Amino acid sequence: MNAFSEVSKSRSSDALAGRVMPTRRVVTIGGGTGTFTVLSGMRAYSDLDLSAIVTMADDGGSTGRLRDEYGVLPPGDLRQCLVALSDAPQVMRELFSFRYDRGDLKGHSFGNIFISTLEQMTGDLDRVLDIAGEILKIRGAVIPVTLDKVRLETELVGGARVAGQFALESNRSVSRVGIKRMWLAPHARANPKALTAIRRANLIVIGPGNFYSSIVPNFLVSGVVSALRRSKARKVFVVNLMNKDGQTDGFTSERYVATLEKLAGGPCIDVVLYNTKRPSESLLRRYADEGEPVSRGAREAGGRIVVGKDLLARGLYRRQKGDTLPRTLIRHDSTKLAKALYELLR
Amino acid sequence: MNAFSEVSKSRSSDALAGRVMPTRRVVTIGGGTGTFTVLSGMRAYSDLDLSAIVTMADDGGSTGRLRDEYGVLPPGDLRQCLVALSDAPQVMRELFSFRYDRGDLKGHSFGNIFISTLEQMTGDLDRVLDIAGEILKIRGAVIPVTLDKVRLETELVGGARVAGQFALESNRSVSRVGIKRMWLAPHARANPKALTAIRRANLIVIGPGNFYSSIVPNFLVSGVVSALRRSKARKVFVVNLMNKDGQTDGFTSERYVATLEKLAGGPCIDVVLYNTKRPSESLLRRYADEGEPVSRGAREAGGRIVVGKDLLARGLYRRQKGDTLPRTLIRHDSTKLAKALYELLR
Repeated sequence: MNAFSEVSKSRSSDALAGRVMPTRRVVTIGGGTGTFTVLSGMRAYSDLDLSAIVTMADDGGSTGRLRDEYGVLPPGDLRQCLVALSDAPQVMRELFSFRYDRGDLKGHSFGNIFISTLEQMTGDLDRVLDIAGEILKIRGAVIPVTLDKVRLETELVGGARVAGQFALESNRSVSRVGIKRMWLAPHARANPKALTAIRRANLIVIGPGNFYSSIVPNFLVSGVVSALRRSKARKVFVVNLMNKDGQTDGFTSERYVATLEKLAGGPCIDVVLYNTKRPSESLLRRYADEGEPVSRGAREAGGRIVVGKDLLARGLYRRQKGDTLPRTLIRHDSTKLAKALYELLR
Repeated sequence: MNAFSEVSKSRSSDALAGRVMPTRRVVTIGGGTGTFTVLSGMRAYSDLDLSAIVTMADDGGSTGRLRDEYGVLPPGDLRQCLVALSDAPQVMRELFSFRYDRGDLKGHSFGNIFISTLEQMTGDLDRVLDIAGEILKIRGAVIPVTLDKVRLETELVGGARVAGQFALESNRSVSRVGIKRMWLAPHARANPKALTAIRRANLIVIGPGNFYSSIVPNFLVSGVVSALRRSKARKVFVVNLMNKDGQTDGFTSERYVATLEKLAGGPCIDVVLYNTKRPSESLLRRYADEGEPVSRGAREAGGRIVVGKDLLARGLYRRQKGDTLPRTLIRHDSTKLAKALYELLR
């Protein structure tokens, strides 16, 4: 399969040319499209060792149905990270991202079926990820933040409870009412591999991504926040480009970080990276139902480093045949984002 | 992955020991469990080049649903042959054979989903089989007998029509009424790769398998019978162990061959291989609803070579964890069958 051979060759050439650099370890924490974008950009840097720590709280869509029917752990975010790190031929990356639009399999993605079938067979998600990683020839590691089967629980201000991630994501009164606390039930213990990756990291990239659904749940897993605080890595929070209507209306960069640290139970971010380039008015009009651009906020508390850069993908994103990224109108440019993150490595 | 390493090692040892033999080409024609058994046995002979020509008329079960919903070619028989020829670790062979017993995917097998998803994406079954063959590390080739999307049509004596393979297989009055003719609609052209394999073969193995469903449809594809007749290969028909209740009641070895050649439109078999060992009475009692043992018949017409051997698997077949063979109570022993076929090579 040619795509793989070419990639391997170009890497070998780099090594032969003597451009050997010390490997630095970059760990992402998140899930979904945001993490896909970070990993897709970062994998261009051959001197980086990449690990993706992935939220395991998803219970909507194809993932939710597979969880309900087969009692498996949520495959969807794992799949996206596997594809992002894959050096396999394009057809295999497309296969894992393929989503059925009709028939018995409607709504499922092939990759989700692959992961959950192997999990049913083996009962061992670690082994499943090894097998998937081999087939997809991934560079790096995809690490579920927990191997416990958990559900995201939310208590809104005033006491109302929201059970599950999908229910929370669908609730458009979150901004107005406010979240009092969030937790995972039953108690979620961190995957030891996730803690090791955090401990050994040089750079930890948190976000971008759906804030309450893809980012926060990682920090509710027991052991993650304390490991982050002990890690010597630089911990960068990548602020979303846009707030989400009904969920994070009016949030500034500062408020994202403060909210995360409050829900996580302690400070754990030392750099905030945000986009300075305003999307075009025509794009903003198309996106108006979804939310408004994030603003930086008046001040950043706690002596954090705050970095503003143009991180915006230009023009209207058009879905290509074989494109494995979900469609979003306004999105980060993976190359710009990766460059900004690379510069934050120490 | 260890299973693969072990297989590779044992083959290399043979080569190092100087036991190099000229490669001889063995082609199977059929589909389903019978072909699986032949291929599983034959792959122990490292001097053989194996190709499986596979029926494309299946329209029942998981395969039928995938055909109906996604307009793909039937994946089920291809999948079984891929698994039979696979040198991949056991977990991959199990994955492709895995069948869902509940949920959205109930009744489907993972391998069928894999094949039909890639076919939907690429529209190119040849390429799909290359990709599947690479992942499953198959030794040999799996060749659809036709790439045309066809349906099996049957006209019973008296004029009644049976549309489709599954309908025919479910019809328990076939023996009593009799079949007048069978054809594929629309017209099915042979896959050129199948014709090449037939032309270059040293030995062609037809059956065992479900006679009207898995064997006969291959011979209805335009070009197959004439290629068989032109081929210098020895063409062996492996007689089933048991007749099928309502379908082939009272058939002798001779009648299977005569029926096949009549439906195919001409003689194309020159060796008949049949089992001489009667299953135990306890096994026959368990199987009584399904049919009775095939008897040899009074004579074999046309100067054919007739070979009788003990080809029976001993004892009650118990399904093992990870076993990829469908359960049948009375079945061929793949080792005995392969040995008998190997001895027929010239």
